[in-house]
Amino acid sequence: MIKLYELAGAEDNRRFSPFCWRVRFALLHKGLLFESIPWRFTEKEAIAFSGQGKVPVIVDGETVIYDSWAIAEYLEETYTDRPLLFGGESSKALSRFVTDWVETVLHPGIFRLTLTDIYAHLHPVDKDYFRKTREQWLGMKLEEVCANRNNDVLSFRNSLAPLRATLQRQSFLAGSEAAWADYVTFSAFQWSRCISSFPLLEAKDPIVSWCDQMLNLFDGEANKASSWNI
Amino acid sequence: MIKLYELAGAEDNRRFSPFCWRVRFALLHKGLLFESIPWRFTEKEAIAFSGQGKVPVIVDGETVIYDSWAIAEYLEETYTDRPLLFGGESSKALSRFVTDWVETVLHPGIFRLTLTDIYAHLHPVDKDYFRKTREQWLGMKLEEVCANRNNDVLSFRNSLAPLRATLQRQSFLAGSEAAWADYVTFSAFQWSRCISSFPLLEAKDPIVSWCDQMLNLFDGEANKASSWNI
Repeated sequence: MIKLYELAGAEDNRRFSPFCWRVRFALLHKGLLFESIPWRFTEKEAIAFSGQGKVPVIVDGETVIYDSWAIAEYLEETYTDRPLLFGGESSKALSRFVTDWVETVLHPGIFRLTLTDIYAHLHPVDKDYFRKTREQWLGMKLEEVCANRNNDVLSFRNSLAPLRATLQRQSFLAGSEAAWADYVTFSAFQWSRCISSFPLLEAKDPIVSWCDQMLNLFDGEANKASSWNI
Repeated sequence: MIKLYELAGAEDNRRFSPFCWRVRFALLHKGLLFESIPWRFTEKEAIAFSGQGKVPVIVDGETVIYDSWAIAEYLEETYTDRPLLFGGESSKALSRFVTDWVETVLHPGIFRLTLTDIYAHLHPVDKDYFRKTREQWLGMKLEEVCANRNNDVLSFRNSLAPLRATLQRQSFLAGSEAAWADYVTFSAFQWSRCISSFPLLEAKDPIVSWCDQMLNLFDGEANKASSWNI
């Protein structure tokens, strides 16, 4: 059975990494059985065998892969008889653009709005590490970054305009059924949902109905994680 | 032969509409012969037969289609033996996200940086119409919108992060060859190039090399239009 090393918070079931969620969805999409191994930021030695220090990492027999995109590529190339994650070369290329949009727009936006909530849900062994590394990157206290979030969320919502426009025309980013582009995008909202009660979206936002559909996929997998609401 | 009604500026060859450029590329991609008919904003009666007042409009035999996305869909469904513009259902859905990103991020960004240059290149018959309608939308003079463009261009360049990231990994948005997603995105830069000498991109930006490739497609079609440099 495939092993998936996933970031966890104070509780083993508080799995909040968006990079790990997209891999979890990819495994479910492919219908592959896997065992989840909760991991914390500071447990570098537990994944040292992968040659680097971040999750997700999967172990499939003798094969060790890290980096969510590389894992998706590996699963697609290895399990060709299962449902396609990308749907072909051109869809894969276009899915890369969605992934890059998520990582350069959606992630930084959510990060700055929920930083203090991430901190609150970390396992005690990770708290000092997280505060120190993140405050060094940001050049300010976690609390300062989030201080004006009620106002900052307005420009965050504006930054979602392309996602909103597409989801007003079609059920999923990948078309009539969810695929990698949807997993990678929804995992960012799931990240927030798992550690924060801060309302990223207005209730009437069309993105909310898509999130509801994503929450229900695979017998409500995303719904089962320890979380707040979106 | 297909007729394409295209927005033109002071000269017939000053074709600057990004929506028309994407259709021109789509026709070239499909290898379809077409005749271009230069059109100005105020010539509403010339396209009244289409039931609305904007270009691009194509006339293919008895069929009249307006709206660039609808035209692309029509060409894809009608000329199935020609190279695919989208590349399949899932690629089409993902291309829609790229199109929505272009229309909600790239177009508004370029519009605000080049508004006075667009005005300068309009046909005399369009100048009053353009100034009046645009200043009403914007609530300010064209000149005021562009007043701080040397500074505003910095956040515009930041907004291109997802495009830049993807083009650092692969030749085209659609993969190893250009397709709709590339046409729709490059047409925004071509729009600017046709009416403005304002430098949207830094010379070292990886987006510039992709623009160079796009300029060379179809025997340098985009290069032949009356334009400045990118």
